[in-house]
Amino acid sequence: MTINFNGNFLKACKGESVSHVPVWYMRQAGRSQPEYRAIKEKYSLFEITHQPELCAYVTKLPVDQYNNDAAILYKDIMTPLPAIGVDVEIKPGIGPVIANPVRTMADVEKLGTINPQADVAYVLDTIKLLREQLTVPLISFGGAPFTLASYMIEGGPSKNYNNTKAFMYSQPESWFLLMDKLADMTITYCKAQIHAGSQAIQIFDSWVGALNVQDYRTFIKPTMQKIFTALKEENVPLIMFGVGASHLANEWHDLPLDVVGLDWRLSIKEAGERGIKKTVQGNLDPAILLAPWDVIETKAKEILDQGMAHEGGFIFNLGHGVFPQVNPDTLRKLTAFVHEYTTK
Amino acid sequence: MTINFNGNFLKACKGESVSHVPVWYMRQAGRSQPEYRAIKEKYSLFEITHQPELCAYVTKLPVDQYNNDAAILYKDIMTPLPAIGVDVEIKPGIGPVIANPVRTMADVEKLGTINPQADVAYVLDTIKLLREQLTVPLISFGGAPFTLASYMIEGGPSKNYNNTKAFMYSQPESWFLLMDKLADMTITYCKAQIHAGSQAIQIFDSWVGALNVQDYRTFIKPTMQKIFTALKEENVPLIMFGVGASHLANEWHDLPLDVVGLDWRLSIKEAGERGIKKTVQGNLDPAILLAPWDVIETKAKEILDQGMAHEGGFIFNLGHGVFPQVNPDTLRKLTAFVHEYTTK
Repeated sequence: MTINFNGNFLKACKGESVSHVPVWYMRQAGRSQPEYRAIKEKYSLFEITHQPELCAYVTKLPVDQYNNDAAILYKDIMTPLPAIGVDVEIKPGIGPVIANPVRTMADVEKLGTINPQADVAYVLDTIKLLREQLTVPLISFGGAPFTLASYMIEGGPSKNYNNTKAFMYSQPESWFLLMDKLADMTITYCKAQIHAGSQAIQIFDSWVGALNVQDYRTFIKPTMQKIFTALKEENVPLIMFGVGASHLANEWHDLPLDVVGLDWRLSIKEAGERGIKKTVQGNLDPAILLAPWDVIETKAKEILDQGMAHEGGFIFNLGHGVFPQVNPDTLRKLTAFVHEYTTK
Repeated sequence: MTINFNGNFLKACKGESVSHVPVWYMRQAGRSQPEYRAIKEKYSLFEITHQPELCAYVTKLPVDQYNNDAAILYKDIMTPLPAIGVDVEIKPGIGPVIANPVRTMADVEKLGTINPQADVAYVLDTIKLLREQLTVPLISFGGAPFTLASYMIEGGPSKNYNNTKAFMYSQPESWFLLMDKLADMTITYCKAQIHAGSQAIQIFDSWVGALNVQDYRTFIKPTMQKIFTALKEENVPLIMFGVGASHLANEWHDLPLDVVGLDWRLSIKEAGERGIKKTVQGNLDPAILLAPWDVIETKAKEILDQGMAHEGGFIFNLGHGVFPQVNPDTLRKLTAFVHEYTTK
């Protein structure tokens, strides 16, 4: 740990006292940055992630520019899937497209296992590089089995996840085998990232809000329990996030994890009233970043007031990823405001 | 009212006693029906709705085939928009596409008013025809201002409604004028449909779940209060529905309306525990319709048990529209099951 290391993010994860509320933004490295857009003209996402020096640069850039309190490794939740036999391509303007969708037990049985040192060495190398360069904690992430399965079953992005749910309801045995295989992949992949130097793990179950509580408990929660129980052994903070999943926040809170990520639909105050006592992370609607500064400041203040009054720790973030139209100056100003408003 | 008129749906809306739980399905007339697909090969949606006899046939077909307890007039929430100057086209595989998006106060000011007798005479004629043909109540519907505005501002379907929200946060004066104009259109349009013979109105605020409670109260609720207060004068049941909007259910319940529509994310039991005492409508996840019959029956039973135990009335429906892959036989069987399981 360097002398100037800023550990506020890790402290907040554990609910410990901080010198200011830590802040980072989901998708802080991405198309909102002109430097990134210039790189994306030359390389695809997979090409960037396969070049550790370039990937480290992309990861670190927003931290330096915005003075954020954490870095998040630049990659995609699809990154580990080719290792287990999923033929995935990130198509510009569409998203992940999968050539061989999973539709039967035989498809599930064919899925292999990941050997991070062989399959994603470039990810581990990037982490090592970043740990030499960064003075803030490095977060790695993985996709949760439901969200990964939704792409694998639908063959790409989906609006209603009808095929995914039909598979889940119609072929429960295949479903649970698929969940189990994806859980094993996620555990191995995340553990390797921690061993390479990642200091926190965020699990994105981006689309699981499409399920109700009852189905979450039946079809998802046992798998998530397995993942977090295994990762807990590594003693780094574990964060959970999904969009439109307010109704599942208490289910997440039950799991052996440290931080409950919230989108903007559930306020931090309401989350507290519903029994969320762990650290929360969120939850400014990224659409607000397109509004005039006084609107942004007012909304940020409300969230900060609620976050600082929360029983557990608090990490300021957006309720979803930064999108391309957002001006980097706005994010720089927002980080400065969060730091200034919350410095003790 | 004909001798054989089945009024269970209207009774359930008012919380009165019924001979069986009434059932209808959102998008019951649509691409899941082979007869409809054959018609759609020849005509666009707008072409079908402009031919009262054909439109009445499409509306009535699923009622006859499934023995449902209500008909819902076949049309689109976009139907009234051309009357106020919005150039909208429903593009196959995409959805509504708007050639002249609303982005400024001047754009809002340009919007006109609707004269239903001149602008949508074909809708009113279809309603009159249907009232002669149907022995179940006829529901008409309208889109709510937020959802209509989302198409008008984005220029088409959207994933995150960023431009819509940016407009709302950045140009509140223009926003409220837009909401007011759309409310006036909706009131005039729905009243004309009631005067032509529609016996209930469902308002679709399909995408308003993208907002949190605080923003709903500030930017949406006053407009919805205005709409429902005006429609209440007509003395027909008023139903509210949106997808992924569980967190707004109590806000809807506050409004002067009769029925709170729920998608599958909030169970009827939980809705009751959260103070929803009015009639509820819902809430089988339509993806379950692709599962084997025993799964469908089990899930339907759970909903029916909760619905019959609900303090207010109960109408069985899906939590979202029927989608094309659903087998009509499944819907016929489901309606029969609901009737049989709940007949007193």
